[in-house]
Amino acid sequence: MTDTVPDDMWAACIDSVGPAGHIRYGRLPVPAVGPTDVLVRVGTVAVNPVDTFVRSGAYATPLPFPFVVGRDLTGEVVRAGPGATGFARGQRVWCNSLGHAGRQGSFAQYATVAAERLYAAPPDLADEDLVAAAHPAASAWLALFRHARLRAGETVYVGGGAGNVGGAAVALAVRAGARVVATARAEDAGAVRALGAAEVLDHRAPDLGEQTRRAAPDGYDVHLDTSGHAVLADAVEALAPGGRLVAMVGLGGAAAELPVGRLYAKDASIVGFALSNATTADLADAARGVVGLLRDTPWRPRVADRLPLSLTARAHRALEAGEVRGRLLLTPP
Amino acid sequence: MTDTVPDDMWAACIDSVGPAGHIRYGRLPVPAVGPTDVLVRVGTVAVNPVDTFVRSGAYATPLPFPFVVGRDLTGEVVRAGPGATGFARGQRVWCNSLGHAGRQGSFAQYATVAAERLYAAPPDLADEDLVAAAHPAASAWLALFRHARLRAGETVYVGGGAGNVGGAAVALAVRAGARVVATARAEDAGAVRALGAAEVLDHRAPDLGEQTRRAAPDGYDVHLDTSGHAVLADAVEALAPGGRLVAMVGLGGAAAELPVGRLYAKDASIVGFALSNATTADLADAARGVVGLLRDTPWRPRVADRLPLSLTARAHRALEAGEVRGRLLLTPP
Repeated sequence: MTDTVPDDMWAACIDSVGPAGHIRYGRLPVPAVGPTDVLVRVGTVAVNPVDTFVRSGAYATPLPFPFVVGRDLTGEVVRAGPGATGFARGQRVWCNSLGHAGRQGSFAQYATVAAERLYAAPPDLADEDLVAAAHPAASAWLALFRHARLRAGETVYVGGGAGNVGGAAVALAVRAGARVVATARAEDAGAVRALGAAEVLDHRAPDLGEQTRRAAPDGYDVHLDTSGHAVLADAVEALAPGGRLVAMVGLGGAAAELPVGRLYAKDASIVGFALSNATTADLADAARGVVGLLRDTPWRPRVADRLPLSLTARAHRALEAGEVRGRLLLTPP
Repeated sequence: MTDTVPDDMWAACIDSVGPAGHIRYGRLPVPAVGPTDVLVRVGTVAVNPVDTFVRSGAYATPLPFPFVVGRDLTGEVVRAGPGATGFARGQRVWCNSLGHAGRQGSFAQYATVAAERLYAAPPDLADEDLVAAAHPAASAWLALFRHARLRAGETVYVGGGAGNVGGAAVALAVRAGARVVATARAEDAGAVRALGAAEVLDHRAPDLGEQTRRAAPDGYDVHLDTSGHAVLADAVEALAPGGRLVAMVGLGGAAAELPVGRLYAKDASIVGFALSNATTADLADAARGVVGLLRDTPWRPRVADRLPLSLTARAHRALEAGEVRGRLLLTPP
C-alpha cells in the first residue's frame, strides 16, 4: 500500500481526566501502525455518554496521555499492517471500541485500529447510520443476546424505547421473535410501535407499575432499562420465574433497593453489563447484529446534531447536561 | 410386588398455613400410588428452614390440605407403580423435593414420591448422612455449579462456612479445583480449614470487609453467602470482573442496597436461586453431587438433634428461633 499520510493531525484530546473543559483541540502526531493494525482516515465520529465518563475519570480505565477521546468511527483505510489481512486501502470501515483500556480514541483525523476491532462497512449502509448505530445498537444486541440470553417467544420489557439503545433493543427483540413492552413519552409511542412493540406505555403515567404488570401478567423474561428511570424493586417484582434483569445504566448513581428474597424465590438474576468489557469476539458478533438491524428492521438511530470535531468539548457538555435526544456526530476537518 | 401397607398412618400435617402451632400430629390415609410413583416407608426425615416458610405461608406454593409438611426423606421402597422402573421393594432410597408445588410432604410413615424425584441410596452411605445432607448439599451443589457456573481455578467466597450449606459449598468448591475463602466463628475455623478452605475469616472481626478483600486481591469469581449476614454492597465491591453473586438467603428480609453502577461496570451478576425451583433433571444431577460429596470429601452434615416425628412442631419452633446449629432429624414410629 502506498499512502500520503501527514506527520501530524487535528485531534480532540485530554492531558488528564477532568471536566469537559479539559478537552483540547490541537495537533498530535499521526499514530504509528503496528503489524496487525489498520490506520483509518476518520470520516465521522459519534459521542457517547461513556466517553464523558472516561474523560471525567468516573469510568476508571488505563489511558495514555495525551489521550484522544471517543470510541466510535467510520472512515477509510489508508494503511494496513502486514498482519491486518482483509483490509485494503480505500475500504470503508467502522469501529466502536477505541478510547479505553489503553487504546487511543477516535476523535481525530486519523486513528489506529487493531484489525480485530475494525469492521467492513457494507456498501448499502450510510456512514452516518453506521457510526450513529455503532454504540447503542451493539449495546442493545449484547444486552439482549449475550447477557440476557433472549429466546424467541419470551416477553421483554424495554425502558426508554424511543432512545437510541432502547429503540435498537425493541427492533432487535421483535426481530428475534420476542413480545416487547416498551416505555416512551406519549408523543414517541407511535414510533416505538412502528418498531414492532406490542405495547408502549407512557413512562410518565402515574400507574406505570400497574400498567407494566398488566401488560405481562406472567412476568417479563427479560428486563432492559435503558433510561435509568426504572425502580429496581418494581422491576424485580415484574420479572417472570427465571427472569433476567440487565443492569447497564446508572454508573455513579445512588444504590438501589434490591428485594433479595423476591429475586431468589423465583430464580431471577440481575446481569450487569458494560460494553467496555466486551471481548473482541463478542464485539464482532454484535457488529454483525448492528448491520442486520440496519438492514432488516425499520429502526434508524436518531441523529440530534452534526458538529465539527473542534466542538468536542461542547458536545460533551451538552451530553452531560442531558440536553441531547439522539446522537451527536462530529467530523474532523 | 406384594406388600402389607396399612390404610392409614401417622403424619405431621397442617390444615392451613400458619404458625408452628398449626402442625397437627395425627392419622391420615396412606397416599395413593400413581403409575410412575413409588410408595416409600419413611425411615428418617430432616427439617429445613424452607419447611417453616412453606408451613407459615411466607413461601407461597400450592398445597393440598391436609398437607403433610417436609421435603426430605430416606426410607425403603414398599410399592412401585408399573412405570416407576428401576425401583424394587426393600430398596433404600432418598428424596429432597417433596412438600411444595402441590406435592405432599415427607413427615409421615409413608410418602408417595414420583420416580424421577427418588434416588437409590448407595450401600456405603448411612441413612442419617444422606437425609441430613439431602437439602443443604444439593443447595450448595446447584448454587455453585448450575447457578454460579463455577470453574476450576476460580476464587470462591463462602459466607458461613461452618454451616451445613456453607460447609458443603466449601468442600464441593475445593474438590472442583477452586480456591475458597470462608467465614466462620473463630472456634469453627479449624473445621472449615479441614474441608480445604485456603483462608477462614472470623465473621465477627471488625475489619472483616478489609480481610475479605485482602484474601482475594483480584476479587471473587463466585460469592455465596449462606449466613444471611453478608452486606450486599460490600459483596458486590469484592467481586472480580465477571463475578457471580448467588442470592439464596434472606426471604422476607429487608431490601438490600445494590450499587448498580459498581455491578455493571465489571459485568458482574446477581443470580437468584431457590432449590424449590430446581427441575427434576437438575435435582438428579445434584443428587449425584451429594453422593460424591459424602464419598470423596471429609464433609459430613452436622446433626443437632434427633426427635420423634410427633415433635415436629417443636422442631419448627426451634428452627424459627434460630436456636439450632445443625440438622434436626426426626423418625416416624
